[in-house]
Amino acid sequence: MDCMFCDENILKKEEVMRNGTCVFLSSKGYNPEGVLEGAGVIIPFAHKASPFDLSDEEVVDMFNLLKDVRKYLDDKYKPSGYTIGWNIGKVSGQIVPFHAHLHVMPRYDDEPLAGKGIRHFLKQKSNSRIKEVRES
Amino acid sequence: MDCMFCDENILKKEEVMRNGTCVFLSSKGYNPEGVLEGAGVIIPFAHKASPFDLSDEEVVDMFNLLKDVRKYLDDKYKPSGYTIGWNIGKVSGQIVPFHAHLHVMPRYDDEPLAGKGIRHFLKQKSNSRIKEVRES
Repeated sequence: MDCMFCDENILKKEEVMRNGTCVFLSSKGYNPEGVLEGAGVIIPFAHKASPFDLSDEEVVDMFNLLKDVRKYLDDKYKPSGYTIGWNIGKVSGQIVPFHAHLHVMPRYDDEPLAGKGIRHFLKQKSNSRIKEVRES
Repeated sequence: MDCMFCDENILKKEEVMRNGTCVFLSSKGYNPEGVLEGAGVIIPFAHKASPFDLSDEEVVDMFNLLKDVRKYLDDKYKPSGYTIGWNIGKVSGQIVPFHAHLHVMPRYDDEPLAGKGIRHFLKQKSNSRIKEVRES
């Protein structure tokens, strides 16, 4: 089995909840203790490489599941907010598997990086493209 | 007008494309030159605080628009991948407006942070919650 998200054993071990076409898996086993508390991923059961490949049914299921996941995480972990999104392609940190997974990360006021969003590091001048630096 | 994403003048100025309930706005005017090239946001026209509040229709429209936006950005900027997601709550960097906006960020192999995804900085041990540090 090349794709961990197509592996029934992984799904059985990590599943928190599911609906028709999607499932929410806890990432607890993959996070260092005390970091990304409560985080997980929502994946379609079908092996689709990216969110661009999802069907309308999968998209609606994913969002309905996301709403339930949010209630579950709010109750269990009491975060102050969330960072939610996809890495698409190796350049965005998607190494393996190429099976679309929506990262759902509860955020907490007592994190050192509280207040920093998904654009924060990427938008710094220090992340200017090399070609731009060379041309300037 | 308190919400920039409810301001027709902003929409007219920044709109790239739209469908029934959603629009893609360029963030070019809000990014330092050479950083986040091609980035923008997909928003619903309706003032909804977070993606948890989107209707099924808005979710389907948003994803259909996302697929078109991807084609447009692939053609225009030729990125190697994407980082896509939402900041939800002040703790995640959502300051103003509280009008759900999906960040769509093309990623490039010549970025210094190429290969770093949305979890990279958040999952570092240095971002452990303060309560955990105190308890350990």
